[in-house]
Amino acid sequence: MDKIVIAEKFDAITDYWTPRVAAEANGQHVRFAKLKGEFVWHNHAEEDELFIVVKGRLTVRLRQRDIEVGEGEMLVIPRGVDHMPVADEEVHMINITRATTTMTGNVASGRAIPPDALQPV
Amino acid sequence: MDKIVIAEKFDAITDYWTPRVAAEANGQHVRFAKLKGEFVWHNHAEEDELFIVVKGRLTVRLRQRDIEVGEGEMLVIPRGVDHMPVADEEVHMINITRATTTMTGNVASGRAIPPDALQPV
Repeated sequence: MDKIVIAEKFDAITDYWTPRVAAEANGQHVRFAKLKGEFVWHNHAEEDELFIVVKGRLTVRLRQRDIEVGEGEMLVIPRGVDHMPVADEEVHMINITRATTTMTGNVASGRAIPPDALQPV
Repeated sequence: MDKIVIAEKFDAITDYWTPRVAAEANGQHVRFAKLKGEFVWHNHAEEDELFIVVKGRLTVRLRQRDIEVGEGEMLVIPRGVDHMPVADEEVHMINITRATTTMTGNVASGRAIPPDALQPV
């Protein structure tokens, strides 16, 4: 049981779109990820996702509009809502969701790391 | 469905130890609170608590030691662990826990606002 220094954890992450599990609470993963470029359109039928942007600016594309989430901002993507994260420049993001949530939700994609294969940080 | 600008939410909070619900995801509350002074010793039998310190420095007293959680740092208090938060100076904290979690857990205290009486921010 130790505190987590958020910036130190991100210093330890060198690859994009590879979330690391920094903590777990109430069956939720606290996943730290560096993002750059486009992800894939998907939704999560049963899981909400909380995004907190620690560095950079994340564009969350929705079907009807985009939401720009900057440093010090957060967004909840409710279950069932199609979305595609896009990072024009490097983004450091904390993603809090169920420990069983698959990254690409309803879409089979080589971009998805199985939840139980996510590494700690 | 809109992004949350964390600093703006804290600007809107004027009282201490009065968490406001900024968002909900997967049955978890995202509670924003300003803290100053001592809280009360307590634990949560069934719920983990995630603390993220956005401003200031929070001392989390445990029975055997203290943990200092500064700006940009986070801590998970596992269920069942006695703790007392202390803020010598004003702290801005994001607390993520089950939507049903009572602030003082196992301890009956006038300091606890019932979970369903927490106001939004």
